[in-house]
Amino acid sequence: MADVRAPAHDLAGLGLSLPANPPAPGGAYVAVRVAGGVAYVASQFPIGPDGRPAMTGRLGRELTTADGVRAAELTALNVLAHVQHAVGLGRVLAMNRFEAYVASAEGWDEFPAVLDGASRVFLAALGPEAGAHARAPVGAHRLPWDMPLELTASFTLRA
Amino acid sequence: MADVRAPAHDLAGLGLSLPANPPAPGGAYVAVRVAGGVAYVASQFPIGPDGRPAMTGRLGRELTTADGVRAAELTALNVLAHVQHAVGLGRVLAMNRFEAYVASAEGWDEFPAVLDGASRVFLAALGPEAGAHARAPVGAHRLPWDMPLELTASFTLRA
Amino acid sequence: MADVRAPAHDLAGLGLSLPANPPAPGGAYVAVRVAGGVAYVASQFPIGPDGRPAMTGRLGRELTTADGVRAAELTALNVLAHVQHAVGLGRVLAMNRFEAYVASAEGWDEFPAVLDGASRVFLAALGPEAGAHARAPVGAHRLPWDMPLELTASFTLRA
Repeated sequence: MADVRAPAHDLAGLGLSLPANPPAPGGAYVAVRVAGGVAYVASQFPIGPDGRPAMTGRLGRELTTADGVRAAELTALNVLAHVQHAVGLGRVLAMNRFEAYVASAEGWDEFPAVLDGASRVFLAALGPEAGAHARAPVGAHRLPWDMPLELTASFTLRA
Repeated sequence: MADVRAPAHDLAGLGLSLPANPPAPGGAYVAVRVAGGVAYVASQFPIGPDGRPAMTGRLGRELTTADGVRAAELTALNVLAHVQHAVGLGRVLAMNRFEAYVASAEGWDEFPAVLDGASRVFLAALGPEAGAHARAPVGAHRLPWDMPLELTASFTLRA
Repeated sequence: MADVRAPAHDLAGLGLSLPANPPAPGGAYVAVRVAGGVAYVASQFPIGPDGRPAMTGRLGRELTTADGVRAAELTALNVLAHVQHAVGLGRVLAMNRFEAYVASAEGWDEFPAVLDGASRVFLAALGPEAGAHARAPVGAHRLPWDMPLELTASFTLRA
C-alpha cells in the first residue's frame, strides 16, 4: 500500500512529479466532482505549470508520436494532481477508466503507444492494484486550443 | 434545497423552461438508465418541441458561437427533462459529469463559451450544490443529422 | 431470469455467439475494470476470432451501413465476452450506457441503424430488464487501425 500513499516516490522513478497547481477550470464547472463514492475528473490537457498548452497540433502532422507520449504523461499528471487536491490519492480504491481524445492526422496510428504514456503514469502513481484501469482511444476532429490530446477519467474511492 | 425542488423557477431566471415532451429515443435504447444509484442519460441533441433539429451545421462555419450557446441550452434542457420524467429532479444528489461533442470548423475555438451555456442551465435547474459538475469538450467529426452539439451526462441519485 | 443465465441461447436467435477469446488488451490496461459494483469495459472493436480487424474504412465511403451493423454486432459480442470472462453475464444487474464512436464519411447519417445492431445484441444476451441501456453515437475523425466503429460500455453488477 506504500505506493498509494507516497505516489511522488513512484512517479520519480519515471522522472516525473505531480504539478503543485494543475490547470484551474476555465468555465462554470469543477475540476473534480465527487459523488456516490466516485471522483469524476473534468477533461485535462497537456498544459504546463505556466498555464499554457505545452504543445499544439496533430499527432502525425505537426507533432510526433514521442510528443504524444509526453502530452499523455503531462495530462495524466494534471488528472492526478486534481484528484490529489480534491480527495488525496490515498483515497483511490480503483481507477475506473480513462478516455483519451487524440487529434491525429490521417493515417497516423500509434494510439496504443500514446495511451501507454498515460497508463504508465497512473500505474506508477497509484500502484498496480489501485492503478489498474480500462481505457478508450478516440481520434478527435479537433480539441480545444488545437491541443493534441485530452483525457477524462473516473476513480472509485474508499468509503 | 428549494432550488432542487422547484427547478422551473430558477430556469425562469434564464428565460428558459423544461420541455414537456423531450425527444423520444429513436432506437432500441432508453433515454435514462437508472442503476446503482446513478442515472445515465442517453445522448441528447438540440431538438425542439416539434421533434426536429433546431439547427444544423458546424460551429464556426454555418453556425456562430451564439448559436452554439443556444444549442447547448436547448440540449441541456432536454437532458433535464428526461431526468425529471424518469426520476424527478428532486432526486438528484449530484450531477456527475457531462460530455459535449461539438461539430466545429477548423480553427473555431470557443468551446468554453458554448459549454458554459449548458453548465448554466444545469446549475440553475439543480442549484449550486447538486448542480456542480465536471465536464468534457470534444470536437467531433460529425454528429447525427448534422447537428452542432450532443450531450451525455450522468447524475448520482439520493437513496 | 433464464435469459441472463443462458445468454448463448438468446444470441443464437440472432445467429450469433460469444467469442471464446475476445481480443486481449494491446497495452498497459485491463479489458474490464470492476470497482464499486460497476464493470467498466475498455474500448472494443470489430476484431474477429483471428485477432484481426474484420473490416476497415469509413461508413458511407469504403463501407456500407450493413457493414456497420455487422461491425456493431461483432464489437458488442467482444464487449460481452469480456464481461462474461471477468465476472459472468449472470452478475449483470443492469447495462448502463454504451458509447459508439463511428468513423463516418461526410453526409452519412445512419447512426441509429448501426447502433441498433449493438443494442439488439446486448438485449438478446442480457434480456430486456438487465439489457436495457442508454447510448451515445459519436462520429469520430479516426479510430485505431482505421476501423469503422468502437464501443465502450459500463455495467452495474449484483452485489
